[in-house]
Order: sequence, then C-alpha cells, then structure tokens
Amino acid sequence: MSGEYEFKQTLVVRLDLKIGRGKLAVQCSHAAVSAAEEARTREPDWWKAWMADGQPKIALKVPDLDAIMSLEQQARTKRLPYFVVKDKGLTQVPPGTITCIGIGPAPGILLDGLTGNLPLL
Amino acid sequence: MSGEYEFKQTLVVRLDLKIGRGKLAVQCSHAAVSAAEEARTREPDWWKAWMADGQPKIALKVPDLDAIMSLEQQARTKRLPYFVVKDKGLTQVPPGTITCIGIGPAPGILLDGLTGNLPLL
Repeated sequence: MSGEYEFKQTLVVRLDLKIGRGKLAVQCSHAAVSAAEEARTREPDWWKAWMADGQPKIALKVPDLDAIMSLEQQARTKRLPYFVVKDKGLTQVPPGTITCIGIGPAPGILLDGLTGNLPLL
Repeated sequence: MSGEYEFKQTLVVRLDLKIGRGKLAVQCSHAAVSAAEEARTREPDWWKAWMADGQPKIALKVPDLDAIMSLEQQARTKRLPYFVVKDKGLTQVPPGTITCIGIGPAPGILLDGLTGNLPLL
C-alpha cells in the first residue's frame, strides 16, 4: 500500500505476546478507531481526505514493547496523530499490557519515515 | 465480553475467504472505524458511552457471505449502526468482495440478539 495513497494509517502490533488472530483484530481495531479519532479532532483535513479515499490502512509487526515505545516517541516528535492500546487483560495477557500502536491517518510520506520498513503482520 | 458492558461493538468476519491474519485485522479495523462513525453521527449518546467505557469490541466469525447479509438485514431492521466492508481486492480476494460487517456501538442487549451466539474469531 506504501505510496499508493496520499493519506494512510498504520496499525503496528508487537508479536512477542502470542495472542490469537481474534485478539489481534480487536487490538488493531481499537488502535484504528482511537488514532482516527485523534486525527479527526486534531487534523480534520487529514481525517476527511483519508475517509474519502476509503480509509487506507495497513497492519504491520514489531518484535517487542521497545519497538512500540520507539514508534510512540517518533510519532509524538513529528506531531502525528497516534494511539497506544493498553489491553484490559481480561484474556491472554496481563491487565495494562501495551499491545499495539495506531499511527495516522497522516500523509504517507510522513508515515513511511516511521513504519515504511516494517514487515506486514 | 457478552453482558459485561452496556455498549459494545461486534466485528463479524466471513471465514470462507481464507485471508491472512494481517488482512483480517485490517478488515475488522475498517468495520470498526466505519460502524463507529455511523454511531457517532446517528446515535451520539451510544457512541459517547462506548468511547468512555474503553470501546468494548469483540471479533466473531461466520461461515459465508449469506450470514453477513443476514446480519446486515437484521441490523437495518433494528436500526442499529452498522457498516459492511467491501475489500478493494488489491490482494488475496477479488475487488468488491464483502469481507465483514461491524455492528455497533450499540446496547449489548440489542446486539446479543444478532450476534450473541456466534463463535469467537
């Protein structure tokens, strides 16, 4: 998807938690809704363009929590809309476990600097 | 999650498409964002309560397209916010393929009548 769309959203999951596909889908969905809401309120023009273009999004993976925290720091530094998901820990992981980060919607050219080299989930 | 939260969202995927976990996560995320947006504009009180409660959501599965269409009809009849995801078909499935439906956020007691008996994704 890289480069095809002007605005996109990346959903980045840590894979060391060994969670099932259903929980992966829920964590990504939480990141998507919350990061989109950040964009809607802080960068409404980005959000509108992304919604109008069919909400391009891509799911990626990182090995561990450190990689998520590094992405959070970069997103904050670049002032991109983002959201870090902490799981309630009702199943599969302890309460408060950070599972993933959603970054964007944002211009693809900005996002690629953070997540352009990560492997697909 | 059934019964624990007053408002929730269900993300229901058809499993006959044989799509990978990354694409499953993206399809569910699209359903989550779009169904939440339906709720935000049509049932803002439901949306606010759901957001304030941490956006409870659950990923479920059905065997085929007929089951998705049946859920769409029920959601429409009950006037619940919902969104049916059509994939652009850039990878893994033909363009326009219906992959999943997001229903809610809505009162759990209404949602359970539609999706309360479906298995977890």
